[in-house]
Amino acid sequence: MRIANLAGRAVLLTGDGAVDVHKASGGVLGPDPQALFERWEEALPVLAALEGEAVPYADDDLRPPVPRPSQVFAIGVNYRDHAEEAELEAASSWPVTFTKFPSCLTGPVARVDLPEGWVDWEAELVVVIGRGGHRIAEDAAWEHVAGLTVGQDLSERIGQWSGPAPQQFSLGKSHPGFGPTGPAVVTLEEIPEPGDLRIGCTLNGETMQDGRTGNMILSVPELIAKLSAVTLLRSGDLIFTGTPAGIGATRTPPRLLAAGDELVTTIEHLGALRTTFA
Amino acid sequence: MRIANLAGRAVLLTGDGAVDVHKASGGVLGPDPQALFERWEEALPVLAALEGEAVPYADDDLRPPVPRPSQVFAIGVNYRDHAEEAELEAASSWPVTFTKFPSCLTGPVARVDLPEGWVDWEAELVVVIGRGGHRIAEDAAWEHVAGLTVGQDLSERIGQWSGPAPQQFSLGKSHPGFGPTGPAVVTLEEIPEPGDLRIGCTLNGETMQDGRTGNMILSVPELIAKLSAVTLLRSGDLIFTGTPAGIGATRTPPRLLAAGDELVTTIEHLGALRTTFA
Repeated sequence: MRIANLAGRAVLLTGDGAVDVHKASGGVLGPDPQALFERWEEALPVLAALEGEAVPYADDDLRPPVPRPSQVFAIGVNYRDHAEEAELEAASSWPVTFTKFPSCLTGPVARVDLPEGWVDWEAELVVVIGRGGHRIAEDAAWEHVAGLTVGQDLSERIGQWSGPAPQQFSLGKSHPGFGPTGPAVVTLEEIPEPGDLRIGCTLNGETMQDGRTGNMILSVPELIAKLSAVTLLRSGDLIFTGTPAGIGATRTPPRLLAAGDELVTTIEHLGALRTTFA
Repeated sequence: MRIANLAGRAVLLTGDGAVDVHKASGGVLGPDPQALFERWEEALPVLAALEGEAVPYADDDLRPPVPRPSQVFAIGVNYRDHAEEAELEAASSWPVTFTKFPSCLTGPVARVDLPEGWVDWEAELVVVIGRGGHRIAEDAAWEHVAGLTVGQDLSERIGQWSGPAPQQFSLGKSHPGFGPTGPAVVTLEEIPEPGDLRIGCTLNGETMQDGRTGNMILSVPELIAKLSAVTLLRSGDLIFTGTPAGIGATRTPPRLLAAGDELVTTIEHLGALRTTFA
């Protein structure tokens, strides 16, 4: 299943269009996409049995598939090639964990106003938690996942690295619109190899990042185990899992986002985000 | 007004007891404390006119007054004396901003299970946002505040300082129960000098921290202006504003929380949190 947020209503995307979850379930499930993930275990069998009319829709009307997560975990330096380009020590047994404050979330087709500073891209796999928990075992971790989606961890680098040491990344990564996500939460049965997906982004058609999620230092199950060893995970939480090599700030000369740029972020089997900058 | 969460229902605390907001408003306001703050501007005049029966209550039944904030901002090294004891550079024009993941929030009378590690205390003033906004002017910032409450930024120091540099504080400060808050959100007309309040904590009756919020490096209006210059603030968000000197980890020898300890965190005019450890 591909679960999306169409103008604020939960829908299933099919080859033919969008099926409204509230209508097709005869009102058993509400229209709020966030509530689906917060009651994932009740919602899943209803969603799986859903039959309804698929109607055409415009990509522009898609919103963040998980619009109001209680918690957004974001992981730094989780690919060795990115750790090298950024001259950072790679993630260790303790994940480098910050947040993207949830008001920065936006949809898969978004126009983002550039703030002052150096705005950079980071293509990221985003995990959507379906069943929360504390101290989740690594070998049971995939059972806690509702699905996967595409994310962009847009980052204003001057802010990210401002303030006294040790610099905290969360604020500079949370300008309005700095969390594009979508187009849909794709459930695992649609993904042949959910632990190893091609991930990348293009800027105005030119490839900037091209990696594989199989090269993460801490895998999705390891991240779920290590985060939940500390903090209670909740249904409907998001985990941004880190970015592979190819960011703009470490290029020579640096390549920063500018007004008029179009950034397309893609993960195989999951879809693409198209973000334009003003 | 003193707005609290009594076993999941919004109440006003008076000298005589607790007035149920839903009942006393004739159903105009719902029972959910979070919803009050998320619709603060509608709720405020109704709350201010509320008359109802005050019934006795037990402190043990108080829960976090703002139970499900969309965003929890937490500020590091915001008092010069704490910056000195921690050997950290003090906050600058860019606030040191991390999060306490919201699942760690607990109420004013709480028993917290100690995880492995070094668990320390940090008494903090917590600001509750009533009216959200982006780019809020410093001189209008107090108008965006619903009220103030007491917070404890419990911190597991080994986790806080783990991982490659620059260490991200959020995860190690977000074990279950690591965010005691309450007992009530106190609105500003009840606080003679909201910018300068005595703040501190005692451990088993012995004073550990004793400072004044007037010694913050970045004041409440400055924090609101600087955070909202970047990130959209939402109604019902929390800001933990940093702690004065007197934490346990930098004492000689270090003083860490242990099973059986009782920590009492107090801010004048706001009340006290009583946290016990197991």
